[in-house]
Amino acid sequence: MDSVRESRVRGIFDSANFIRDLGMELTLVEEGVCETSLVPRDRHMQQHGFVHAGVLATLADHTAGCAARSVVADDHDVLTIEFKMNYLRPAIADRLRCRAVVLRGGKNIVVTEAEVFVLKGSEEKLACKGIFTVAIKRSLQEH
Amino acid sequence: MDSVRESRVRGIFDSANFIRDLGMELTLVEEGVCETSLVPRDRHMQQHGFVHAGVLATLADHTAGCAARSVVADDHDVLTIEFKMNYLRPAIADRLRCRAVVLRGGKNIVVTEAEVFVLKGSEEKLACKGIFTVAIKRSLQEH
Amino acid sequence: MDSVRESRVRGIFDSANFIRDLGMELTLVEEGVCETSLVPRDRHMQQHGFVHAGVLATLADHTAGCAARSVVADDHDVLTIEFKMNYLRPAIADRLRCRAVVLRGGKNIVVTEAEVFVLKGSEEKLACKGIFTVAIKRSLQEH
Amino acid sequence: MDSVRESRVRGIFDSANFIRDLGMELTLVEEGVCETSLVPRDRHMQQHGFVHAGVLATLADHTAGCAARSVVADDHDVLTIEFKMNYLRPAIADRLRCRAVVLRGGKNIVVTEAEVFVLKGSEEKLACKGIFTVAIKRSLQEH
Repeated sequence: MDSVRESRVRGIFDSANFIRDLGMELTLVEEGVCETSLVPRDRHMQQHGFVHAGVLATLADHTAGCAARSVVADDHDVLTIEFKMNYLRPAIADRLRCRAVVLRGGKNIVVTEAEVFVLKGSEEKLACKGIFTVAIKRSLQEH
Repeated sequence: MDSVRESRVRGIFDSANFIRDLGMELTLVEEGVCETSLVPRDRHMQQHGFVHAGVLATLADHTAGCAARSVVADDHDVLTIEFKMNYLRPAIADRLRCRAVVLRGGKNIVVTEAEVFVLKGSEEKLACKGIFTVAIKRSLQEH
Repeated sequence: MDSVRESRVRGIFDSANFIRDLGMELTLVEEGVCETSLVPRDRHMQQHGFVHAGVLATLADHTAGCAARSVVADDHDVLTIEFKMNYLRPAIADRLRCRAVVLRGGKNIVVTEAEVFVLKGSEEKLACKGIFTVAIKRSLQEH
Repeated sequence: MDSVRESRVRGIFDSANFIRDLGMELTLVEEGVCETSLVPRDRHMQQHGFVHAGVLATLADHTAGCAARSVVADDHDVLTIEFKMNYLRPAIADRLRCRAVVLRGGKNIVVTEAEVFVLKGSEEKLACKGIFTVAIKRSLQEH
């Protein structure tokens, strides 16, 4: 993957306040693939002490968006149209790892799936999985 | 709605760290209905200056969970199994309002829909909508 | 709604073989709204004698597509990108009624929701509900 | 996989009228996996001559249900709670092949994903993909 495109992907990671605020890290960018991770903190939890479904959805959504961004022309941006997440087990983890892979890129939309794994000790298990539809837009100005 | 049940709903709102951390407020609880609001801050934004899809999903998910909790027996808890969100317009707002309504309550699951509105000046518009499937579980211990 | 557009909506109803084969009927077309109905037959059933989830999904999908078609320019077509259905109760019915309403129309996509009701004697209940994302395409040729 | 369970899976295939009516065939059953196929006929088409989204959803839903059934105790049945499908390309095919795999089996629900491939000449391409949540119920009587 050329470095211009990779830097564009890193750009939508680094310039998203909420992603920095959560503490997400970008760990891998390839054409059509992105991986991220997050160390869960107390502030990420829901009422039973599991990582909140919204944190997991954010991790999956932004990673899916980055994977989509990697297959889109440089002068375009990506915006989530819709997604669906299934939560397979409560998320109790030392670290969360998310991997998103493009299923299909088109002219106007990209479809991506994302899996979030919980790492606890030496074990890694699939915690949730989602499918994302992302719109391709001519570059938007920040406002 | 009896005050014991209402206090249980408020309980899963107040004891969820991520919800307090985001700044969500609980504004209405009725049997099968819940409303919440959030004043978006810079830290909630994605790369174009819109509220991040993950913030909107969190708001909708937790409000849907509270609506589900309001129709479930006191010695039970609720956990999101899955949801799907459609994003209808970029969220630029002075305030976000979320309203969740139970579509169907069962013995093991509750199905809820949630809408998030953007309030900007005197205008209110539907920004996104989702459907949520929530599992009913015997009360879980915090760990 | 002008009669040209209404006839285009009826066109994608009448020219869809699978819809005729199932026995669906178009009962209402307005701008952004469509209603259809189906009398379930033995051949529509799954293994427990309920209407098959696939029949209900087809009914909802095609009705959602017709509602979307009603807000799209005449020289364009609509194609389902994705949908999600929640099944709220087993469908045992004298008649199924489906109502689809456009939530948001855009330049490239239309988002629609659809509800399917079971009518049994004098009672009508919500059996399932879905959200549909439909792509707007320049008119496709039949092949 | 023991032959009693396999015959139960075949049972919910053979006893579903709509599945027989469509012409679906069961081609593989393993623990947590099911494959089916369908030769598209004129009657399965939508208005542009593509296989109707509802046919593809039915194929995916029933295959997902069979995969789920393979991991559930003999005296229980499965019922679709909800699913989401993404359509990646128009389905023009000599044959459709569907493969469903269980992502997670629980006490009350099973989560399954299903992919439908279009076979045209010697080429096979992913046409659509979905995630399914299936409820586990004590055996239901046919009525």
